[in-house]
Amino acid sequence: MTMFELPPVPRPSEQARATAQERLDGLVKPLGALGRLEEIAAWLCAAHGQVPPRPLDDVRVVIFAGDHGVASTSAVSAYPREITAAMVRVFLAGVSGVSVLAEQVGARVRVLDIAVDAELADVAPEITAHKVRRGSGSIDVADALESAETLRALAAGRAVADEEIEAGADLLIPGDMGIGNTTVAAALVAAMLGLPADEVVGTGTGVDEAGRAHKVAVVSTALERAGGQAGDPVALLTALGSACAAATTGFLAQAAVRGVPVLLDGVYSGAAALLAAELAPGAQDWWLAGHRSTEPSQAYALKALGLDPILDLGLRLGEGSGAVQAVPVLRSARAVLAGMGSLADLDLG
Amino acid sequence: MTMFELPPVPRPSEQARATAQERLDGLVKPLGALGRLEEIAAWLCAAHGQVPPRPLDDVRVVIFAGDHGVASTSAVSAYPREITAAMVRVFLAGVSGVSVLAEQVGARVRVLDIAVDAELADVAPEITAHKVRRGSGSIDVADALESAETLRALAAGRAVADEEIEAGADLLIPGDMGIGNTTVAAALVAAMLGLPADEVVGTGTGVDEAGRAHKVAVVSTALERAGGQAGDPVALLTALGSACAAATTGFLAQAAVRGVPVLLDGVYSGAAALLAAELAPGAQDWWLAGHRSTEPSQAYALKALGLDPILDLGLRLGEGSGAVQAVPVLRSARAVLAGMGSLADLDLG
Repeated sequence: MTMFELPPVPRPSEQARATAQERLDGLVKPLGALGRLEEIAAWLCAAHGQVPPRPLDDVRVVIFAGDHGVASTSAVSAYPREITAAMVRVFLAGVSGVSVLAEQVGARVRVLDIAVDAELADVAPEITAHKVRRGSGSIDVADALESAETLRALAAGRAVADEEIEAGADLLIPGDMGIGNTTVAAALVAAMLGLPADEVVGTGTGVDEAGRAHKVAVVSTALERAGGQAGDPVALLTALGSACAAATTGFLAQAAVRGVPVLLDGVYSGAAALLAAELAPGAQDWWLAGHRSTEPSQAYALKALGLDPILDLGLRLGEGSGAVQAVPVLRSARAVLAGMGSLADLDLG
Repeated sequence: MTMFELPPVPRPSEQARATAQERLDGLVKPLGALGRLEEIAAWLCAAHGQVPPRPLDDVRVVIFAGDHGVASTSAVSAYPREITAAMVRVFLAGVSGVSVLAEQVGARVRVLDIAVDAELADVAPEITAHKVRRGSGSIDVADALESAETLRALAAGRAVADEEIEAGADLLIPGDMGIGNTTVAAALVAAMLGLPADEVVGTGTGVDEAGRAHKVAVVSTALERAGGQAGDPVALLTALGSACAAATTGFLAQAAVRGVPVLLDGVYSGAAALLAAELAPGAQDWWLAGHRSTEPSQAYALKALGLDPILDLGLRLGEGSGAVQAVPVLRSARAVLAGMGSLADLDLG
């Protein structure tokens, strides 16, 4: 087992959760009639240790951008590798899908070049400050990273979580950008959960059936090469992951260590979450799943983590775009606890 | 067939829909990657006849409150009939579930006493201005209404839609409040679609299995008594509906006649929508379904209308509470069309 020590993950407050449930049961509505909102309201109370929970005013999306070698050596995506670097500029211009969707809920978007296979000399230095390398290795033929790079990427993700939390984040959302990333996510989930490639591989950005068959073959080859690393999350990230996967894993683990709620997005953050929960036991208590991915590996990852997506709008964009749309649901869950009247006050004449 | 003439329902603009789809395909994302948002964006463009669609700033929930006789004569609900009148005061105080949820999205809530079985002498006269009667008949043993009352209730719903549209509504949401209303909704849907009571009856506000069996028996008896009216929507509302069901039906039909988008809520508006689409052919083109109900009759009604709920948060509150939570999804759908960059502008180096 590769040494990678994290501080312990705090436990959410069961007392606040119980107080919240009691309050919810007394609101002016049939018992349990607010469904998922009640569950989320109690969850937020447990996370914040108070009833009602604090407002979720400061929501921050962090996009970890990087290339995956598997997209340079074989056609696993409907789009060329060069898209990744170009999309960093689209995020910075504020016209990406997640930029527009985040603006709707008043969330900030930060993009980081973790492993884009280009020199982004024209962007501000803070964008590339955490860069680990240019691209990650092609997991079907070689390790994605060197061990030291995995540790640097994990540390980068943790540092970014700390930065955002210290700047005031009430809620964090991990985003991803990288051609090839659903292939890497599928390989990680398959290795962690002992699933065959065919079960976890989807159509990503939109490959056809032949394209999916090729992705299955690539993931199978990768699993044959290095699937045995599953017991060691750091070794697995090194062998079958990528710098972005490791950074996202560190980000999710550190948010939990700091006791800050996270809304997971799609398939990429699902895979990273599975690894982060291994590295930081109990971390899943601090996460909700924002949106159901069309990629099958996400469903397996979330099931293993005991999480059920809040929304299912059929998005397959990544970027954190599904999760940001669940922010109003969390705010509504808080609002019912803070604002609804009580059954006891009903005037039955 | 009872005479009930409505002006024709306009057709949404297929040209605007096609232009929207073309624009969506050129946005900086994989083809179709925004899933349901793309479908909704194109739908809004068709409704507004322009790309992007207008903002949905002015959203209005209208709650039709009334009692259903079936709740006075038999135990079809976990709650007593007196709740309906008491809840009107809760809406007016702004502390109901939908009040709080509507505030989150900046929507207004209006409540109307259509058939509450009480004299609400203490509330403002505009609340009772459209009142049709005190309670509706118990559908297992008698008609819900007299024909003239059905027509008055339909006219009331239409008048209220006109009032809200003239006051500036960009989007209308029907809400419902009335102990016993899932029983009436089930009976209407079963009669319209030729389904047995056991297929459409759910647990409503939370009855147990014995309570549900009783509801099934009540709906069966009602269908035996008057299920043959299914070919005539007005006669069906008279026999198996209620004043609120008729008012909601008129409201939904008139919104379509005026070409104003509607977000349907749960089981009650689903049943009314089925009737409104009979009275006003093509009306369903102006509706989206906001939230999946836990009541089985809604799924049947929506399937018949070709609608698929946007959210599934497990709510079973009524009041319009599910639909209001889908408002951010509609606004986001508009925002992507208005704000995202285009693939053509991507800088691939």
